[in-house]
Amino acid sequence: MADLRNVCIVIGSRANYARIKSVVAAVHRHPGLRLQLVVGASALLHRFGEVIRQIEADGYSVTARVYSVVEGENPTTMAKSTGMAILELATLFENLKPDIVVTVADRFETMATAIAASYMNIPLAHTQGGEVTGSIDESVRHAITKLAHLHFPASEKAKERILRMGEDPSTVFLTGCPSLDLLIDIDLSLPEDIFTRPEYRGVGNLTAADAPYLVVVQHPVTTEYGRGLEQVRTTLEAVTRMGMQAVWLWPNVDAGSDEIAKGLRIFREKGKDSIQFVINYSPEDYARLINSCACLVGNSSSGIREGAFLGVPAVNVGTRQQGRERGLNVVDADYSTEAILSAIERQIEHGRYESNPLYGDGRAGERIAQVLESAELVIQKKMTY
Amino acid sequence: MADLRNVCIVIGSRANYARIKSVVAAVHRHPGLRLQLVVGASALLHRFGEVIRQIEADGYSVTARVYSVVEGENPTTMAKSTGMAILELATLFENLKPDIVVTVADRFETMATAIAASYMNIPLAHTQGGEVTGSIDESVRHAITKLAHLHFPASEKAKERILRMGEDPSTVFLTGCPSLDLLIDIDLSLPEDIFTRPEYRGVGNLTAADAPYLVVVQHPVTTEYGRGLEQVRTTLEAVTRMGMQAVWLWPNVDAGSDEIAKGLRIFREKGKDSIQFVINYSPEDYARLINSCACLVGNSSSGIREGAFLGVPAVNVGTRQQGRERGLNVVDADYSTEAILSAIERQIEHGRYESNPLYGDGRAGERIAQVLESAELVIQKKMTY
Amino acid sequence: MADLRNVCIVIGSRANYARIKSVVAAVHRHPGLRLQLVVGASALLHRFGEVIRQIEADGYSVTARVYSVVEGENPTTMAKSTGMAILELATLFENLKPDIVVTVADRFETMATAIAASYMNIPLAHTQGGEVTGSIDESVRHAITKLAHLHFPASEKAKERILRMGEDPSTVFLTGCPSLDLLIDIDLSLPEDIFTRPEYRGVGNLTAADAPYLVVVQHPVTTEYGRGLEQVRTTLEAVTRMGMQAVWLWPNVDAGSDEIAKGLRIFREKGKDSIQFVINYSPEDYARLINSCACLVGNSSSGIREGAFLGVPAVNVGTRQQGRERGLNVVDADYSTEAILSAIERQIEHGRYESNPLYGDGRAGERIAQVLESAELVIQKKMTY
Amino acid sequence: MADLRNVCIVIGSRANYARIKSVVAAVHRHPGLRLQLVVGASALLHRFGEVIRQIEADGYSVTARVYSVVEGENPTTMAKSTGMAILELATLFENLKPDIVVTVADRFETMATAIAASYMNIPLAHTQGGEVTGSIDESVRHAITKLAHLHFPASEKAKERILRMGEDPSTVFLTGCPSLDLLIDIDLSLPEDIFTRPEYRGVGNLTAADAPYLVVVQHPVTTEYGRGLEQVRTTLEAVTRMGMQAVWLWPNVDAGSDEIAKGLRIFREKGKDSIQFVINYSPEDYARLINSCACLVGNSSSGIREGAFLGVPAVNVGTRQQGRERGLNVVDADYSTEAILSAIERQIEHGRYESNPLYGDGRAGERIAQVLESAELVIQKKMTY
Repeated sequence: MADLRNVCIVIGSRANYARIKSVVAAVHRHPGLRLQLVVGASALLHRFGEVIRQIEADGYSVTARVYSVVEGENPTTMAKSTGMAILELATLFENLKPDIVVTVADRFETMATAIAASYMNIPLAHTQGGEVTGSIDESVRHAITKLAHLHFPASEKAKERILRMGEDPSTVFLTGCPSLDLLIDIDLSLPEDIFTRPEYRGVGNLTAADAPYLVVVQHPVTTEYGRGLEQVRTTLEAVTRMGMQAVWLWPNVDAGSDEIAKGLRIFREKGKDSIQFVINYSPEDYARLINSCACLVGNSSSGIREGAFLGVPAVNVGTRQQGRERGLNVVDADYSTEAILSAIERQIEHGRYESNPLYGDGRAGERIAQVLESAELVIQKKMTY
Repeated sequence: MADLRNVCIVIGSRANYARIKSVVAAVHRHPGLRLQLVVGASALLHRFGEVIRQIEADGYSVTARVYSVVEGENPTTMAKSTGMAILELATLFENLKPDIVVTVADRFETMATAIAASYMNIPLAHTQGGEVTGSIDESVRHAITKLAHLHFPASEKAKERILRMGEDPSTVFLTGCPSLDLLIDIDLSLPEDIFTRPEYRGVGNLTAADAPYLVVVQHPVTTEYGRGLEQVRTTLEAVTRMGMQAVWLWPNVDAGSDEIAKGLRIFREKGKDSIQFVINYSPEDYARLINSCACLVGNSSSGIREGAFLGVPAVNVGTRQQGRERGLNVVDADYSTEAILSAIERQIEHGRYESNPLYGDGRAGERIAQVLESAELVIQKKMTY
Repeated sequence: MADLRNVCIVIGSRANYARIKSVVAAVHRHPGLRLQLVVGASALLHRFGEVIRQIEADGYSVTARVYSVVEGENPTTMAKSTGMAILELATLFENLKPDIVVTVADRFETMATAIAASYMNIPLAHTQGGEVTGSIDESVRHAITKLAHLHFPASEKAKERILRMGEDPSTVFLTGCPSLDLLIDIDLSLPEDIFTRPEYRGVGNLTAADAPYLVVVQHPVTTEYGRGLEQVRTTLEAVTRMGMQAVWLWPNVDAGSDEIAKGLRIFREKGKDSIQFVINYSPEDYARLINSCACLVGNSSSGIREGAFLGVPAVNVGTRQQGRERGLNVVDADYSTEAILSAIERQIEHGRYESNPLYGDGRAGERIAQVLESAELVIQKKMTY
Repeated sequence: MADLRNVCIVIGSRANYARIKSVVAAVHRHPGLRLQLVVGASALLHRFGEVIRQIEADGYSVTARVYSVVEGENPTTMAKSTGMAILELATLFENLKPDIVVTVADRFETMATAIAASYMNIPLAHTQGGEVTGSIDESVRHAITKLAHLHFPASEKAKERILRMGEDPSTVFLTGCPSLDLLIDIDLSLPEDIFTRPEYRGVGNLTAADAPYLVVVQHPVTTEYGRGLEQVRTTLEAVTRMGMQAVWLWPNVDAGSDEIAKGLRIFREKGKDSIQFVINYSPEDYARLINSCACLVGNSSSGIREGAFLGVPAVNVGTRQQGRERGLNVVDADYSTEAILSAIERQIEHGRYESNPLYGDGRAGERIAQVLESAELVIQKKMTY
């Protein structure tokens, strides 16, 4: 057993888990790897759906739990939560002695994993590097690339960017995005009870499962902190005027979540009936939910990423995803009720798109596990130019 | 006064101060800027020369002091010290409300400044980006580039690398390295009492000011943690066999400093007379010291950077500076007593080199202050490709 | 000005501010004292009413803000929030250099103030020591007494206990409780718009200002963590069965707040009309609210403390206040719907009690400021036995 | 195995380990208990003797390691190190789920253990409560008593004080001090090579094993921060003038250690030959060392505690131990060279004292383990008055 590689995957949010779940599974079943699962940040918090319960329900044993969110949901606490997580992860890595650490994508707290591991001379693997977006995620993603020892970009263009930034080609593996893996593994038909199941009920009124519905996910844009309330109102108005029933997902814990949440609460109190607010779905049920929706609205990457693969019409609002590579299924709208409304109408009229394998073919988890087991691990990084 | 820009400069070590001192001065005297000076990490610590005393002696008033070094000098505490500094700097920035934050070069703790500022939507300016070296500094430097909003590279090639990494050309300013500025501002002749002044005496035997001497600075290479004791022994043996009197500077607080220090202490106890161990010089006296030395030995960047400008013969040992652009004054040696010894002999035989303005012309501070005052500040970063 | 004493008051919650407001005022206007106001923890958080807005609206300038709540509202994060606050307060005290630090009562995070100050040899003043209750507050309060250099107990018995614990009598000042001071300073008549003002509206249905109403405040008992949901349900049922309209205040951020909040949310969703849930009142309006209520129900100390002074009938539920000295206005009930219901009925039948000056005469603020200005400050503590 | 109690013992320094070693052993071998050993703070640091190596050499497997010392050795960092340790211990306790946590005596960082455990509703056991001294230890010790659920005082008077402070008699167990246990377990004769063994050599000149020698241990007094340099000089002068060879132990990591260390370094550089400076002995060898010394000088509690049991003449300097119960073997001296010198002379003239079982009979470890296994564990504390 001594020569199994210990692979420590750090999961800090609902989004993290959906994006890495197939890697967790592939590492778990790989005979040459031993899984260490650290769950922290908002993945432990009730307000954000306690993703840890899903993880445990999926049959994984959690190696360590770490509370690291400094409350405030503003730029200051976003920084402090990251500092806190570094403190804690360093101690965990000191005691768990992983051979490789995996960090997921670009949320602000993933930087903590990247710093703790790279500073401690533990090879760092990174998924979803090389993409381009707005928000602080844009900076975080590329900074992590410069700290990481193994790169698992999701698309050809992302891979190209990683190489152009000076990373050693022998460390860059085009695997596709693990978040697509579950789309081919599961039955995507919509569960009849998805709008009534107690764990998904959330606040707000119920949605009829057999009628068309929108799915809305609008996260704060951290670099536009202070404008979230207005931004969410704009989308709320568009959705309300559209008149179609909708499921609205609660935002992540980011600088500005509070503003978004405030906008949603104010709306809710007006007693409008057509929107159901839900904190959290399992990754599988979220996939089913968007697969059957009439249109996915907001600024989540899932409209672009899973949306491309599923061919789901998506309206991308504002700057959060600006620059991100996309398929035909996405229509952009700026922060304007008219623009959002007319884009939704256009998309509903169009209906389903063809599947586009832009972000992968659904086999990323296996490929990543394979590289984690076999890759040569070199600590000292070197620019290629 | 309301439209003065508050420029917060964070100084965390002896090396930081020497590298940014002329910027501090230029910001301080610029009528359109207001200086905020945060001093933390090893710059507060007795073991590392309490650089804060020099800063205050230079006439600056320190806005805030922050203890953030978690003791241990290993990779784990290097990460933890960074987490700690993020926690603290976030609170300071919250209360000081700087308009721009300046972080210096690539020591591990400068990442804390970069994360706190960029996460808090405060424009981040960075000096010495785009260079290539070994150690964790290599990763830290480029990761900070991906977080920074204004770049002040020291050399043409460094500027090129920053652009190739996808930074917006309008944010990249080739200013030269501020550490060279003081070389043209001061009288570089060696003070007669430099080896006897109480504040520099350190441990070890005195050096005769009128005889030739070596200067040795050997820092740990964090990515080669665990090999520092052997590395320093090799250099110690070479220096001892060389037979020339030497001034040896104590290493920075990094993962592995303890190993280096242990090597020095073991050596010291043998009672050899020809080496004087000093914790810290003022940036000016350090410049004078190396300007008059027979050869600068070790792995500090000063042999390459100030060395090029001054034309001082330097022997660069090991991997810490691998890939760093250099002039003719530098001879490389790997971790071998023979190699180091023969390189020193070669350099002493050669003697002084011509000055090479590779890293600047000594006017960087002014230029940087000018940009800090006038640059358009855009929070949302965007890759150029 | 050099010989003014700098008095730093740390406010970390809604409860803190109400309990220390008159001291803040008295220090602020005392010619021999200079006020430093540090606001942190839940006093900065939207979910807990952003008490900092009231503080600023009251005309005080906040010296420093510190985010220190680690989210989770469980025993683990209660400890971590305290650790975090110590880190931050130590840096603030290092830079603010207060001559005296004031910490309020016994909430878990007040320990952070006590440790930072006492470890840093800054004289620590403590209000509300020597009282007896349940919850972790019981331990926190007495531990702070053993760290504090000046004691301001509210009652004669509390003073006695402080002395019996071995504190030097010359450091113990029976001043009464500052929370009573505002009861004599203001007009206590109920504002007509108190149930409709936007800042107090909260979630839930409106209460008619001219009809009798209950006020309910039920905090989690940290030492009974895991039983909060059941405890709050019991009270909710009693209040519902009572049939009288009620104002229910949201709990503090403590281990278990989440359970209480969950109980309240579940209830709210049933759409019962008779309870209005409010996050926060100004200390003055809270005083007015309870002064005019038919009965104060729950486990807040205000039923016992302000209740005694105002003669308001109170039903004290469960163990949180066990052992606390009380007047005739309080009837205890254990965690049982029947017990609570019958106690409320009994109290409403009885109506108003006579005022009881058990916890002070409303002049504590002045007295405390006077001692802060004149007391001899001795750092080294000594047990009297 | 499910009903074994997990007993987590937190060791943070050289002093901690010596004072709890017999409890570690007794818990380890008790069939009803499972030992969890957390080693942190200065017990991990090279500068303070890496006590963790002794712990591992003694055959214990360390459950978790935690770096928590914020460097600076001043009052500010003493507070910050405590905050840091709370953050970390909370996460460890969250994951290790101990049934009881043991904290040792009164060093500042033991407060971290006390807060983390008590806030998390984990029963806290405390050794050496109820004693009286100077320094911040005096406050820390009594504050921990007010947080602890089980008390293991070393002396009858200490037990009395714990009871007078209001602790429940059923939770107070007079066991004696575990630090005495090893005095009856081992052969106390002085190893011939104790002054030449490499691990003890330290800096300074060797001591002749067959000639009389002094042992000096002088810690900083945190509440007299800033006066340490002068205090140590006074003792150094007395010891030098005494003319007898001496072993001088390096101080603990406390506010002011740096001043003490500076005093020692300045002295050392004068090249005096008669003092050997040692960082650390194993608890057993330290016992042997003091058992055979001519006089124990300084302000360590070992002169009073182990000294009483062994009958070793001790000179107690200054305020650090003021108020501590003592036997005839102790002579006090204030911070004056004359006073210290004449006290040493008096003690050497007197020679050995009779053994005094003031602090126990050497069987504390067994008794404590027995209570840990069988005691009823009640979370909610209650004052007895």
